[in-house]
Amino acid sequence: MEFSINQIAMMLGGEVIGDGNEKIKMLAKIQDAKKGQIAFLSNPKYEQYIYTTQATAVIVKRDFAARREINATLVLVDDPYISFTRLLEEYHKLISFQKSGIEQPSFMADTASTGKNIYRGAFSYIGGHARVGDNVKIYPHVYIGDNVVIGNNTIIHPGVKIYSDSKIGNNCVLHSGAVIGSDGFGFAPQEDGSYKTIPQLGSVTLEDNVAIGANTVIDCATLFGDSTTIREGVKLDNLIQIAHNVEVGKNTVIAAQTGISGSTKIGENCMFAGQVGIAGHITIANNTHLGAQSGVSKSIKEEGLRLMGYPAIEFGSYFKSYAVFKKLPDINHRLKELEAKIQATQNGPLSPG
Amino acid sequence: MEFSINQIAMMLGGEVIGDGNEKIKMLAKIQDAKKGQIAFLSNPKYEQYIYTTQATAVIVKRDFAARREINATLVLVDDPYISFTRLLEEYHKLISFQKSGIEQPSFMADTASTGKNIYRGAFSYIGGHARVGDNVKIYPHVYIGDNVVIGNNTIIHPGVKIYSDSKIGNNCVLHSGAVIGSDGFGFAPQEDGSYKTIPQLGSVTLEDNVAIGANTVIDCATLFGDSTTIREGVKLDNLIQIAHNVEVGKNTVIAAQTGISGSTKIGENCMFAGQVGIAGHITIANNTHLGAQSGVSKSIKEEGLRLMGYPAIEFGSYFKSYAVFKKLPDINHRLKELEAKIQATQNGPLSPG
Amino acid sequence: MEFSINQIAMMLGGEVIGDGNEKIKMLAKIQDAKKGQIAFLSNPKYEQYIYTTQATAVIVKRDFAARREINATLVLVDDPYISFTRLLEEYHKLISFQKSGIEQPSFMADTASTGKNIYRGAFSYIGGHARVGDNVKIYPHVYIGDNVVIGNNTIIHPGVKIYSDSKIGNNCVLHSGAVIGSDGFGFAPQEDGSYKTIPQLGSVTLEDNVAIGANTVIDCATLFGDSTTIREGVKLDNLIQIAHNVEVGKNTVIAAQTGISGSTKIGENCMFAGQVGIAGHITIANNTHLGAQSGVSKSIKEEGLRLMGYPAIEFGSYFKSYAVFKKLPDINHRLKELEAKIQATQNGPLSPG
Repeated sequence: MEFSINQIAMMLGGEVIGDGNEKIKMLAKIQDAKKGQIAFLSNPKYEQYIYTTQATAVIVKRDFAARREINATLVLVDDPYISFTRLLEEYHKLISFQKSGIEQPSFMADTASTGKNIYRGAFSYIGGHARVGDNVKIYPHVYIGDNVVIGNNTIIHPGVKIYSDSKIGNNCVLHSGAVIGSDGFGFAPQEDGSYKTIPQLGSVTLEDNVAIGANTVIDCATLFGDSTTIREGVKLDNLIQIAHNVEVGKNTVIAAQTGISGSTKIGENCMFAGQVGIAGHITIANNTHLGAQSGVSKSIKEEGLRLMGYPAIEFGSYFKSYAVFKKLPDINHRLKELEAKIQATQNGPLSPG
Repeated sequence: MEFSINQIAMMLGGEVIGDGNEKIKMLAKIQDAKKGQIAFLSNPKYEQYIYTTQATAVIVKRDFAARREINATLVLVDDPYISFTRLLEEYHKLISFQKSGIEQPSFMADTASTGKNIYRGAFSYIGGHARVGDNVKIYPHVYIGDNVVIGNNTIIHPGVKIYSDSKIGNNCVLHSGAVIGSDGFGFAPQEDGSYKTIPQLGSVTLEDNVAIGANTVIDCATLFGDSTTIREGVKLDNLIQIAHNVEVGKNTVIAAQTGISGSTKIGENCMFAGQVGIAGHITIANNTHLGAQSGVSKSIKEEGLRLMGYPAIEFGSYFKSYAVFKKLPDINHRLKELEAKIQATQNGPLSPG
Repeated sequence: MEFSINQIAMMLGGEVIGDGNEKIKMLAKIQDAKKGQIAFLSNPKYEQYIYTTQATAVIVKRDFAARREINATLVLVDDPYISFTRLLEEYHKLISFQKSGIEQPSFMADTASTGKNIYRGAFSYIGGHARVGDNVKIYPHVYIGDNVVIGNNTIIHPGVKIYSDSKIGNNCVLHSGAVIGSDGFGFAPQEDGSYKTIPQLGSVTLEDNVAIGANTVIDCATLFGDSTTIREGVKLDNLIQIAHNVEVGKNTVIAAQTGISGSTKIGENCMFAGQVGIAGHITIANNTHLGAQSGVSKSIKEEGLRLMGYPAIEFGSYFKSYAVFKKLPDINHRLKELEAKIQATQNGPLSPG
């Protein structure tokens, strides 16, 4: 990437104060930026750095009033943070879309098909009857099983494994080590105490704009025609477990190491922190927020609750109870003292002098 | 798969009511099934669907008494759920056993050997002196280290990594991203505060009929001749951590994201829910049931307990205590009030006027 | 490995009692050892075995006083455990360093470079401009992205994925399925309830002597020039999540399935047990010890604390409170009784008749 500041300002709908012809090669933080780089100032507590930064340009708010002299060229915008994010995104596209072509050796079944402008890394595998859309990046060591369908502009990082019959939408990103479509954990107990595996014959569907973190696992549904379903815009962090037949609603965001048990249905726009556990066969209402390490064992029917603990209760209640939990030994002691006093009081007048 | 209903009934030891010559191509749920498919009715609350289903055949209990007309051919059996599971299993075998032969490029050391009817996917790797049994499916990107031994009929899904010297039994299933035999977490503290790695030279043994979930990790034992051991019939879900020198007893079932620390011995027929943590160097008795997110730090010697919490206590006790936990701020408040009252009572008669 | 006992004693600075010319081929535990093997006795509770062991040699403390006859040759040292560890280590080096050369097919970009005495397993991938040091072992299915730098003597086990621009030090060990440099979990909420991905353009740095467990994930930093940093000597167990911009201090040791949220800074010489969760944007002081499953939501400023629970409190306090937690239903009951008694007492004298 090399753009003039004027070009960048045009892209952001911003106004230039200073020399707009200077060239920018990179983005950086305001405190670290060097010549040829562009930074941004959004949080006022970083204002000091704008007077000393080596950055060639800084993106600032339109109403920014400098208190001292600034060497950098300024680009005035409505929201510097959003503008900077847009630049990052453009830069990232340039980088990630530069990969294309087919590295060898790689494997693609005769019956599989791919769209235009594909990257297929070395040692990637595309199984029989798989259909891959346009502009898809398939990094090395990716496995795409038989009959898998993948939309356009999706990026599949090194070593992702997609079992047969899975469906992946457009604009998805799957990070290394993610496993899509492994067998759900279904075992029928036998009379001798052993378990018989119940074959899992459903599939997994990721709708559009879904992000799947590294080493996250999504099991397939149990029966034909059923699908573990991750709705549009869902973002899953790393090392998450999504069991068979789960549905995760639109735009829900889940942090690392959370686990959702089989056949549970998560609503839209939920936010779960890390290491949360959710039981099977329940329903979680839209806009539910769950604190880190909380556990949910029953359906949550009211929308918009903020819960934590196990079983999860309302945020404030949890912390108030926990504050008392820390004093429990003292409470126990005080209770015993009271009991003794009452006993003494009651014995006192009644006991023979 | 395409069978007549009569053939299916014969396989299940069932009785046909209706046209047994119709052909079945697929299995489906009773509420979704279409022509050419077979469904089952086990749970009475789904009975309504049997009167409207498009399924060509439905498996029902021998004593099922229809209240209205049914279009589907019925197959009467003792236990419809078990029968349906058997069909699923047969179907699954047909699918999974259709993979065979050797895709290229793949790697097998000269000194390695494989049995008959093997599938070796592209980019699979078999190291020196490894011995693989009959009917084994080795999917793409599987790594089998030096000296590994694998029994018959085992299925190793894409990207499984098996370190050298591991032993895998017959009829095992290992899901994508599972790691067998990584180094246990052994570090000797040095005087300068740093740690020296203690080399781990033992191995891992999976006995017959073991299932290992996606991205689950089983560390090798520390010393020569020792083995982290997963006994016959054990089922491990996804993203589980089994540390060095652990033994998991026969037919124990463990849900996702649970972790078992080094040198702990788990009994037979235990059931652990998800995200459970178990300390090192302890013993868990047979038939122990642990609730989700519970933590066990001491040996459990009595068989058949149902525990939860951390440290884990009896199920009912945990929930009873937790019910009071939620009221702790109120309890604290009431206790203070009582103290004040008692104080007042005691001061009252004694205090001047 | 085949050494005489005299050679081993020389290596350990030990003294031989018995026939020092006998040959040792292997290391084993004292209770299992066979002829040709060497064991050690450190813990007195294993003393019984020294009188019956089949080991050809046993390493014992210099002041060990035998109570009965011993068949094995003894090697007297200051610390038998440390000596045995050294032997294990030497043995391990012999084994792990025997892999060398380049297996085919493997992939290395023209612009990449490797040092001397390299092992590159089949199906390993080295991207553009990557630089790999001397004596590095790159096992099969390893992915090394563009511009990655790897120091000397580092071992990268099968299937590790290292995203572009990561830096790995000398003498590191990365276990199977580890992912280095995946995108941090950064999403900007949009007005319509959806999230826009914030591209992550930083990198990951592992300093020297770092160990990374199987299927552990380390996300890259968000901005150019920033780096998620794992300092010298850090040991991470399996299935750990390290989010973007985290720093883990020198010689800190973290057990399996722990998760650390974005931008948090962990001190030096900390020890975290398994399944711990740590919030984002906080600081943990040096020498902090966290118990299993504990959760930390605020910075810990005092060094050397031992904490557990969520939010984590001092070890002893947690267990004392938990002891009372188990009795909460009883406490609740006693409190009610007291209230009734006080009520009766107060009503008593006042109530008519």
